[in-house]
Amino acid sequence: MIDVIYRSIQEELAQVEDKLKAAIDITLPPQIEPLYYSLSGSGKRARPVLALLAGKLYDYNAEPILSMAAAIELLHTATLVHDDTIDQSPIRRNKPTVNKLWGQETAILVGDYLFAKAMEYAASTGYSQMVKLLTQTLQVIIRGELNQYFNAFNLRQTRQQYIERIAQKTSSLLSLATQTGAILGHAPERSVEILREYGYNLGIAFQIVDDILDFVGTEEEMGKPTGSDLAQGTLTLPAMLILNYYPKDNPVKKIFENGVDQNSIKQAIEIAKNSTIIQECYQVASEYSSKACRNLESLPDNTSRQSLIEIADYVVNRKR
Amino acid sequence: MIDVIYRSIQEELAQVEDKLKAAIDITLPPQIEPLYYSLSGSGKRARPVLALLAGKLYDYNAEPILSMAAAIELLHTATLVHDDTIDQSPIRRNKPTVNKLWGQETAILVGDYLFAKAMEYAASTGYSQMVKLLTQTLQVIIRGELNQYFNAFNLRQTRQQYIERIAQKTSSLLSLATQTGAILGHAPERSVEILREYGYNLGIAFQIVDDILDFVGTEEEMGKPTGSDLAQGTLTLPAMLILNYYPKDNPVKKIFENGVDQNSIKQAIEIAKNSTIIQECYQVASEYSSKACRNLESLPDNTSRQSLIEIADYVVNRKR
Repeated sequence: MIDVIYRSIQEELAQVEDKLKAAIDITLPPQIEPLYYSLSGSGKRARPVLALLAGKLYDYNAEPILSMAAAIELLHTATLVHDDTIDQSPIRRNKPTVNKLWGQETAILVGDYLFAKAMEYAASTGYSQMVKLLTQTLQVIIRGELNQYFNAFNLRQTRQQYIERIAQKTSSLLSLATQTGAILGHAPERSVEILREYGYNLGIAFQIVDDILDFVGTEEEMGKPTGSDLAQGTLTLPAMLILNYYPKDNPVKKIFENGVDQNSIKQAIEIAKNSTIIQECYQVASEYSSKACRNLESLPDNTSRQSLIEIADYVVNRKR
Repeated sequence: MIDVIYRSIQEELAQVEDKLKAAIDITLPPQIEPLYYSLSGSGKRARPVLALLAGKLYDYNAEPILSMAAAIELLHTATLVHDDTIDQSPIRRNKPTVNKLWGQETAILVGDYLFAKAMEYAASTGYSQMVKLLTQTLQVIIRGELNQYFNAFNLRQTRQQYIERIAQKTSSLLSLATQTGAILGHAPERSVEILREYGYNLGIAFQIVDDILDFVGTEEEMGKPTGSDLAQGTLTLPAMLILNYYPKDNPVKKIFENGVDQNSIKQAIEIAKNSTIIQECYQVASEYSSKACRNLESLPDNTSRQSLIEIADYVVNRKR
């Protein structure tokens, strides 16, 4: 199903890829290698896909949408590179990270360079609003990161705080993709808002499933070790439910209070798997996924709309 | 003399300070503290000063120039915060660095946030060219940083490579300040170019003196330990001249080939002080400073022009 969606916009996606390549096509050997590396690989290009589909719902004006789609992907990649540096993560998507291969110094500069290129591409759309939205989104993402970092190993977090945090971290860019795709596709104001909301709710669903897979996924599927969130002291929905169900004595509490140990991580994963916790988390994700689609029926009935609905469905059923 | 210049634009500089404060005036406790910290302190605000003076040469349209001046200072601060993180520097301008006080994780995010705000301010001028110029300058700076990082402890660097590197690292932002000030002040095209060139040459002179002071300044004046460049394997003009004059056996070669030791750093500083090397470096800096002023006479004869000439003079005579 997802393959069909990708095929329906494969030409545009190829053009986005060209723009990503052009962004780092500079005479800068040997420093260019980590830049190329950071942008290649098995990323799903979810954000460009969303921008293209939102744009294609209405009057598809290719050039600015392609530039903005590339800008958003560049910004996303930059934040991943800096995240991995901050977390000292050795692996992502089954590949060693930039910080692992070239050191944190290079990783900081690679991220900075990608930020600069992202902003340049947004400016190149000719719509000053695009730069404004992109920089504001970056600020929201960073607030989410600071939020996560300053709340690491903090047990006293509400579900509302969790949703707020993943909205900052993940929904912000997905909703920017659908919103800007819609604006550049000359969608009516109300439709822009509906598509922005779609992106927001899709992002929440997406991130909850990500947090679930950190418990029940396999390392190969996820491309990184399971239990990473617990190891970094990030309180996600499954961990919150473990805390709720076993308030007195549980491995999550132990990790957050006494420090990370592999045994407790394994125990936490077992508890989540052998209870209704994972099911409940999927239930929450499904609600956001349904919410994402709720207002889409007022939009033009075309392939793009159908693709957006299928993506919302895919997000909660994906295995990686 | 410099005090007089600052007094002549003190009102505008106060407005730039307000804009810098506003950039971080967000409800983000406790994470806001490192942001405030990074922007406060004893910085000279050299880049805003240059933008304001270049703008005041012609038709001074305050609002966009103030925003752009703040944008450039934010970008500058962001690069300093990331530089210090990359170099693991514990101190700058006599104050502990953000990475020292809050850790490299926070420092990366603080820099990212300042980048985002810088771009937002540039966009808020309403001139899309400003965003383009700012992002392109950021790319040049990062190339300079990568250049420096990949050439650390590399003895085989020509003077041309050195000039190119410090142009990327330092001249880029100074010339952006004068260029954008001029553009937003509606200067004729030829004057914009003259002011851009002024900033370029001023930047080279400024950085050469910085590199001299790393040898002959006191730690108190410089706000960081002397010999920092050698300790980081950065080949600067004084070190190049030591290599030229004592090709067989000298402490710079020793440091670059066998690793950093404090004794060799001290020896290198002594050699530079007790020879004509420092004098020669000042000679080179003076040439760039004179070059900076060369074409200024074709610009309107007003206080701003006089201030720019005095700044070029100050840059080679400063002690910190």
